[in-house]
Amino acid sequence: MVKGALPVIVLFSAHPYPDRSRANRALLEALSGVPDLEIRSLYDLYPDFDIDVPDEQEALTRARAVVWQHPLYWYSVPSLLKHWFDKVLLRGWAYGEGGTALVGKRCLWAATTGGEPQMYQPGQIHGFPFEAFVPVIEQTARFCGMRWEEPFIVHGSHKVSDTALNARAEQYKQRLLSLLESVRSQA
Amino acid sequence: MVKGALPVIVLFSAHPYPDRSRANRALLEALSGVPDLEIRSLYDLYPDFDIDVPDEQEALTRARAVVWQHPLYWYSVPSLLKHWFDKVLLRGWAYGEGGTALVGKRCLWAATTGGEPQMYQPGQIHGFPFEAFVPVIEQTARFCGMRWEEPFIVHGSHKVSDTALNARAEQYKQRLLSLLESVRSQA
Repeated sequence: MVKGALPVIVLFSAHPYPDRSRANRALLEALSGVPDLEIRSLYDLYPDFDIDVPDEQEALTRARAVVWQHPLYWYSVPSLLKHWFDKVLLRGWAYGEGGTALVGKRCLWAATTGGEPQMYQPGQIHGFPFEAFVPVIEQTARFCGMRWEEPFIVHGSHKVSDTALNARAEQYKQRLLSLLESVRSQA
Repeated sequence: MVKGALPVIVLFSAHPYPDRSRANRALLEALSGVPDLEIRSLYDLYPDFDIDVPDEQEALTRARAVVWQHPLYWYSVPSLLKHWFDKVLLRGWAYGEGGTALVGKRCLWAATTGGEPQMYQPGQIHGFPFEAFVPVIEQTARFCGMRWEEPFIVHGSHKVSDTALNARAEQYKQRLLSLLESVRSQA
C-alpha cells in the first residue's frame, strides 16, 4: 500500500493456528503485490480476545471493500471473528438508527474448508449443501448495508495438491484485483 | 438437582450481558424446580474466554441431553459459545476417529431473538426465513452424533409482553420436562 493512501480493501484474516495453516497462508501469500490492500490478522492483534473496537471501526471506515478470510470452524467463522462481529458491528454504528458506517461497502467472504464439496449434501458427513451455511454470514453483511459479493470458498484444503492450491490462490488474487477495479470505477 | 446424582440435562447458558437480559432470564427462572438439571453460565465461568476444556468435557460427559441457550447474536451464537464449540468439541473426542463422547445425546437449541418472526423473510430486515440460520447450529450437533431436537425459539423478545413471555417460559419448562422424561424412558 502506498504510504499515506487510504486502502481500498481491508482484509480481516482470522486463523487461530496460523502455523498449521496451509490454504489460508497460500491465499494470503498470493495477495502480495495487490495494491491498496490492508491485511489485519485478528489472532495476532488480539490473542486474548481484547478487541480494540475503535481501531477496528477505523479500519472498516477506511475500507471500500471488506474481506473476511478464515478457515471454516463449525460451519462458521472462528470464534475471534465472531467476537469481532459481536463487538465491532454495533447498533448505531453498523446498523439501527444512525448506523450507516458500512452502507454500500462491498463484502467478500473467503473461507477454506477441510471437506470435499461432495461431503456437503444430505446423507453425507456435513449433512447440508454448503450453501446452507452461507446465510448467517451473508445476512450479517447485508444487515449492515454491505453489498454481498459471491463468496470465495476453497474446499478440501487439507488434501488439495500444491498445484491446485496455488491455482486457487491465483484466482483469489484475481478476485481481489477485480474487486479493486470495480470499487475504483465507482469513484 | 439431587446432590450426588448425575444430571440428565446440562444447559449451557451464554448471555454476554445478563443484566440486560429479559427473555433469557425469564427462561432460566422458569426452570427452577426442574430436576436433574445442571445450568452452566458460560459468561460467568469464563469472562476472559479462558475456557476450561476438561471441565466442559466432563459436564458434557455427564449429560444425556445438552441445551444451548442464548440470545441470537448476528444470526448465531454469542462469541463465547462459538469459542466453546471451537475449544471443547475437539477432534478425537467429539468427532473424527475415536470421537464418540457425544454420540446419542440429545441437543436442544434454545434461542431468543429481538426480531418479530415476520422480519425473517426475503425483503424484510433479516432477509431470510429464520430456518435459514438453523443449519450451522444443527449440523454442529449432528456432526458430533447428537440427536437434534426441534429448536425452541422465542422471537420478539424485546417487545413481548410479560404475560406472553411467561407463557413461553412455561412452555420451555415443559419442553425440558418432556426431554427429561424421554431420556429417562430410554434408560
